[in-house]
Amino acid sequence: MTSRTLIRDLSHKMGETVTIAGWMHRHRSMSKFGFAIMRDRTGLVQVVLEASQLEQLKGLQVESVLKVTGVVVEKKSKDPHVKEVEIQCKLLEILSPVRDAVPVNINNADVEANLDTLLDNRVVTLRNPKQRAIFRVQAALVHGYREYMEGQGFTEIFFPILAGAASEGGAEFFTVNYFDREATLTQSAQLYKQITMAVYEGVYGLSYSFRAEKFATSRHLTEFNQFEFELGFVESMEDVMEHAEGALRYMLPYVERECADELKLRGVTLPPLGEKFPRISLANALQLYKEGTGIDETSEPDLSPAAEKWLSTVWAPKEHGSGFVFVTDYPASKRPFYVKLDPNNPNNTQSFDLVGFGCEIISGGLRVNNYEEQIQRIKDKGLNPADFEDYTMMHKYGIPPEGGFGMGLQRLTQNVLGLANIKEATIFPRDVQRLRP
Amino acid sequence: MTSRTLIRDLSHKMGETVTIAGWMHRHRSMSKFGFAIMRDRTGLVQVVLEASQLEQLKGLQVESVLKVTGVVVEKKSKDPHVKEVEIQCKLLEILSPVRDAVPVNINNADVEANLDTLLDNRVVTLRNPKQRAIFRVQAALVHGYREYMEGQGFTEIFFPILAGAASEGGAEFFTVNYFDREATLTQSAQLYKQITMAVYEGVYGLSYSFRAEKFATSRHLTEFNQFEFELGFVESMEDVMEHAEGALRYMLPYVERECADELKLRGVTLPPLGEKFPRISLANALQLYKEGTGIDETSEPDLSPAAEKWLSTVWAPKEHGSGFVFVTDYPASKRPFYVKLDPNNPNNTQSFDLVGFGCEIISGGLRVNNYEEQIQRIKDKGLNPADFEDYTMMHKYGIPPEGGFGMGLQRLTQNVLGLANIKEATIFPRDVQRLRP
Repeated sequence: MTSRTLIRDLSHKMGETVTIAGWMHRHRSMSKFGFAIMRDRTGLVQVVLEASQLEQLKGLQVESVLKVTGVVVEKKSKDPHVKEVEIQCKLLEILSPVRDAVPVNINNADVEANLDTLLDNRVVTLRNPKQRAIFRVQAALVHGYREYMEGQGFTEIFFPILAGAASEGGAEFFTVNYFDREATLTQSAQLYKQITMAVYEGVYGLSYSFRAEKFATSRHLTEFNQFEFELGFVESMEDVMEHAEGALRYMLPYVERECADELKLRGVTLPPLGEKFPRISLANALQLYKEGTGIDETSEPDLSPAAEKWLSTVWAPKEHGSGFVFVTDYPASKRPFYVKLDPNNPNNTQSFDLVGFGCEIISGGLRVNNYEEQIQRIKDKGLNPADFEDYTMMHKYGIPPEGGFGMGLQRLTQNVLGLANIKEATIFPRDVQRLRP
Repeated sequence: MTSRTLIRDLSHKMGETVTIAGWMHRHRSMSKFGFAIMRDRTGLVQVVLEASQLEQLKGLQVESVLKVTGVVVEKKSKDPHVKEVEIQCKLLEILSPVRDAVPVNINNADVEANLDTLLDNRVVTLRNPKQRAIFRVQAALVHGYREYMEGQGFTEIFFPILAGAASEGGAEFFTVNYFDREATLTQSAQLYKQITMAVYEGVYGLSYSFRAEKFATSRHLTEFNQFEFELGFVESMEDVMEHAEGALRYMLPYVERECADELKLRGVTLPPLGEKFPRISLANALQLYKEGTGIDETSEPDLSPAAEKWLSTVWAPKEHGSGFVFVTDYPASKRPFYVKLDPNNPNNTQSFDLVGFGCEIISGGLRVNNYEEQIQRIKDKGLNPADFEDYTMMHKYGIPPEGGFGMGLQRLTQNVLGLANIKEATIFPRDVQRLRP
């Protein structure tokens, strides 16, 4: 609408006649006049309605779409320091009438409903300003990631979803009825980012991954997205960690700048980045955890959730002024077949996790880039090399020393915003039960 | 590699000792010396090898990954006007040996193989510079699209893939074995872009679509991507066409600027944009086609491929200096249930195609935004409204006057580059036969 004024711009139009359009967020009728709170993508404003206009709204529910032409006036406020505007309605048009009451109230500060109700009614609950803010922040995280990667001269890849065989082995994949045979949904973009790394050298993208895991926890989705990265001609794992750190150091300030209103609305403060994210081996991390808390997990092959939390929210902020810490040198038993072994210790891998916000948010490392070694590693994991011919074809025909990482989009969004369940950070989440809307 | 020089930068390093790294694109041995043509992501360069270095390469095939330290010198050229460099090798390291001959030659100007061989061996054929250029152009098209949409203040949405029911009706969808029931792969992001339009007002994104169509033509894929767009609070279809035109007017010059080398390598010249893309009704388009060619298709409900070609490559360039033309007012029988009818003629819709490069590249229009009308339209198409409850839920709870469009990523890439088959424009294409690599 050419003549439409957005609600956030009304304060600059005092005394003028303007046209606004949006949803009826709330309304209230007195005997001779009434109020409608209108909502557009930029904010809320109160509209004062006369009796004849109230008559037009008869039988209509909140979420009806309205167009209001009226005069911008100062709203009387209890606090004389707060200047607010409202609109004296002159002309009211109904753009889209709503005759059924919405199934969930969305006109409070947040949607007060349990998670299933929130998600069942995404069509309306997403309209609540606090819910809406989540996916503005998510989009900004993606934009920041891409800007960082483009700035490095890397190439964006659009990864495929359908595949002939399970991409990482294991049983947790979905099958698709594909004409007269079976296809699978990709579990990981690993194959594709390595193939394309051997073409463009530095590649990145946002992939989809599907996992047929029956877990119904606050951390599981059957469909999710990952920030992908793969880089050729590396000299050490530091070349990969540098870009994991570089990406986050770019993304988080980007979100603070681009989504200041959304972060404020949700009361979010981001953890400190510090000068440099510390890098410690898993063995050292477990030792520090023991010394700091008295909890001895030094014989474990991985960090526990409690140890991840302590490292990134207690130890790293105190010792390094940073909410992030790289943990390196995970045992071979805990890492996939494509992760490069430590040349000095075949039970150890050249791999890392980046721990932040109390949990692992990035997982990466160097990759096997030698054909014979890759075939052997597949066998060592009890898998059949014949099932990985497309994968090992790239090793056969030359890939440079290389590494990469993956970072879950929804998990990062959940952590940045401090949401209790990953589904809140997923615009249309899918789990064991949920396939709609 | 910190000390690595990229091949495109060698001409500025004459006389210096540098280290390059890349793939052995070609090689040739004389009695006492030899040559290796090295390839990295930025170009090709000839390396002159001594006998001892040739010995190192014994048994190794092209695509072996090498690191070469040597002196940049001027290469003797037949044409004295052409200044080229080569490298006198001092130190040769084998980063990754290739012992099997590649299945397809990739070291000629283009890959000389039939389409199936090209695609079966994507792992190596993608490394050919002319093949590699295709997906640099594709990424630039996406970047240009996003930059345009962000510049308009619209919000990017990441659409889901798994769905409970077929999104647009019909039988051409894939089913997924989803725990103890069936899911489908999304046919279209239509539902999701309309839901999110009613939150963010202007939304865009790159979606995945899946179609279980058995056609094995040069235009069919079972998995493809679409540029999506949806805009609320429109006054007419022109508000939507303006952004379809705006996006293309931004994207094509963006690609010409960012991918000048790739377009040159592929010998591509883009069609003229002209001052403004003409807008004509389908009836007028068919009338013009009849007058211009003598072929009478005026009683058809759609444009034939030949008519699309004539309109965008003959008529529009001649009459409007533009390779693009909007064709509007398609009959209701040829458009889906969500397209808004013409208020003056219920057999006509408020819809458009953008025709360019000889074929339809964008399809869009206004949408039904009234609940009762949408229910009726679903019934009129012989479908059951109960199957579309998630879809009509958004109409029930208020969506503004709105419209949008979709544009196929692979089809646009194919057309921009003049490729014979859409699979050449798809990095890892899937069709009735193909699910790998």
